[in-house]
Amino acid sequence: MKVMKAGDVDFAKRGGVIPVVVQDRQTKDVLTLVYANKEALEITIKTGNAWFYSTSRGKLWMKGEESGNVQPVHEILADCDSDALLYIVDSDRPMCHTGERTCFHNIVK
Amino acid sequence: MKVMKAGDVDFAKRGGVIPVVVQDRQTKDVLTLVYANKEALEITIKTGNAWFYSTSRGKLWMKGEESGNVQPVHEILADCDSDALLYIVDSDRPMCHTGERTCFHNIVK
Repeated sequence: MKVMKAGDVDFAKRGGVIPVVVQDRQTKDVLTLVYANKEALEITIKTGNAWFYSTSRGKLWMKGEESGNVQPVHEILADCDSDALLYIVDSDRPMCHTGERTCFHNIVK
Repeated sequence: MKVMKAGDVDFAKRGGVIPVVVQDRQTKDVLTLVYANKEALEITIKTGNAWFYSTSRGKLWMKGEESGNVQPVHEILADCDSDALLYIVDSDRPMCHTGERTCFHNIVK
């Protein structure tokens, strides 16, 4: 484990927006795959709640801003080449807009 | 849970290449964030080993083709809007090119 700063995350490599894996701290279920830019990461660190960047709407959003299903972030990790993030969240509220805890509910194989 | 076909995955939405979260079946650790196109998904389903698409090299690759750290895929899930995948793998061999099991070994917060 290496400690790094938010400024060391390589957003530029992927045009300013990188993928974020969100994982439940207790169950370790993978909840969703979303995206963040530098500002979303900085607001997440500052507020302690999961903020993202919507690639379809072209704007920042906080999970739960409409639904109330806010996701407090316990820890943020970056991968070996610093162009993907992992938010570990402390909540039992739905992450998916369908009302399920996880967005990964379609079986391909 | 809904069963879907490989052909139902929405690669087109993101230009033919979508993110893949890889998770350890036993520990539930998130191991890496990589990418796949339709062909990589089809070969993964056919062979049972994790295949991806390298966005930097512009080619298909099998994890372990050089290192020997092949990652057998137990299950493949897609998210609610079918533009991200989750490979659940059965292995205790390193996923990261650094030799660590997981690529997420940098602490941002």
